[in-house]
Amino acid sequence: MNIAAPDSGRLSINTATVRALWGLGEILDGCARHGIRGVSPWRDQVQAMGLQEAAAKVREHGFTVTGYCRGGMFPGATPAERLAARDDNRRAVDEALALGARCLVLVVGGLPKGSKDLAGARGQVRDGIGELLDYARPRGMPLAIEPLHPMYAADRACVNTTAQANDLCDELGDDGLGIALDVYHVWWDPDLPAQVARAGRKRLLAFHVCDWLVPTRDLLLDRGMMGDGVIDVRALRAAVEAQGYDGFHEVEIFSAEDWWKRPPDEVLRTCLERHQACC
Amino acid sequence: MNIAAPDSGRLSINTATVRALWGLGEILDGCARHGIRGVSPWRDQVQAMGLQEAAAKVREHGFTVTGYCRGGMFPGATPAERLAARDDNRRAVDEALALGARCLVLVVGGLPKGSKDLAGARGQVRDGIGELLDYARPRGMPLAIEPLHPMYAADRACVNTTAQANDLCDELGDDGLGIALDVYHVWWDPDLPAQVARAGRKRLLAFHVCDWLVPTRDLLLDRGMMGDGVIDVRALRAAVEAQGYDGFHEVEIFSAEDWWKRPPDEVLRTCLERHQACC
Repeated sequence: MNIAAPDSGRLSINTATVRALWGLGEILDGCARHGIRGVSPWRDQVQAMGLQEAAAKVREHGFTVTGYCRGGMFPGATPAERLAARDDNRRAVDEALALGARCLVLVVGGLPKGSKDLAGARGQVRDGIGELLDYARPRGMPLAIEPLHPMYAADRACVNTTAQANDLCDELGDDGLGIALDVYHVWWDPDLPAQVARAGRKRLLAFHVCDWLVPTRDLLLDRGMMGDGVIDVRALRAAVEAQGYDGFHEVEIFSAEDWWKRPPDEVLRTCLERHQACC
Repeated sequence: MNIAAPDSGRLSINTATVRALWGLGEILDGCARHGIRGVSPWRDQVQAMGLQEAAAKVREHGFTVTGYCRGGMFPGATPAERLAARDDNRRAVDEALALGARCLVLVVGGLPKGSKDLAGARGQVRDGIGELLDYARPRGMPLAIEPLHPMYAADRACVNTTAQANDLCDELGDDGLGIALDVYHVWWDPDLPAQVARAGRKRLLAFHVCDWLVPTRDLLLDRGMMGDGVIDVRALRAAVEAQGYDGFHEVEIFSAEDWWKRPPDEVLRTCLERHQACC
């Protein structure tokens, strides 16, 4: 792929990448120390630190918050469950606003407990996003639908292709709604080039990177560092940037047996190196 | 799903389901003892038993061989690797003919070692199937492309959707070419109903059943028995039979920690029960 190495100023660290050994305060300080300009924090870490303190520290370091992880989980077995999800998602929008996040990332949820009705779950997701848009749009917080790999269809997200995310944007309107594209989830999709073009700059709200390892030993916690697997990350970056995407490249690595066990400073150094070499 | 339980005479057992504790001879005798009418054997088991002896035993019991597992693995890093795959696939066609199999199932292969060129691998698959068709068509052995779940794109099969399989049939011609549809690989696909209709009776050469467990603890060896997971197997059977499919329902369960450890007679009894209750 004949494309230059990226500007290192466009590296963002999703805090999940180093959360096993560091709290949010250490992560933010660590990223600043390594000259990393973007971060994407998780809700539980922000809540543990305190929203105001987290927001203050983000401002102090001048970080771009490339996304807030995460809203979603819309489907529920009962109206009460769905109402609880609605209220929790509204709080997530408020928190994302307080942090100045570029978008709230939506992991939309899978099948309600005991259900095999995947089409029904997808309908609940559409309705849930539509309802959340009514809250997020007037407040100016974009929602980024993250298509998750089909291996998570049952338990994490029943939006599993970029085509589905585009369909939802078509149906619900582009205003304040777009897509968080994670190479881990979409690299296999033969329809990806067409769907990235269909999404275009307007819908591409976030771009996440890591790698697919062979073998993959765990469905959730065995993601690889860019360059260690089979994904042509640079080609996928070229594809989104060909649409005009000029946002950050956010590293999100769940790796219980490897990267989560290493010293976080080493992990951040490696992210910087691999961002240059492989993204 | 308002559809009657299936005819138990249409249950087929993929020998992988009970291979951990039984050799092929025991499996064939066991299936006959339980009144099961269809089997789908794996090449290594047939070779271990001897092709002629396996074919004789199949005839003796009057089994329908619903598929032969498997050909494919087309992509190679070198011309020599691809040539070896070609020759091995031709032998697989010959063996399938000797067994009287309804089709040779193709697990098409993933990325060649060291490659990140997924589009290139897919091109090699197209070329490989095309070349094998030249051998299989005049001999009358249908090839059944099995789309594998996207989590196997790197190392097992880079045909990951029913749409891709249909595209290959369009490109290479329907004569002697079709699709083996396994609920495990395709249940998540929002495009599945449209693609099953597109395939139609002519292309639907085999229908495989098992279930997707939540959680799934291993990418390869943690498939569930029908009814134990989240797949609406009956709805999927209804969809293929609405196209006129009147073949067998083949149970293929890789389950290192559960079904492979149980007495094979118990596994076969359970397959019969769940076939009635859930398929």
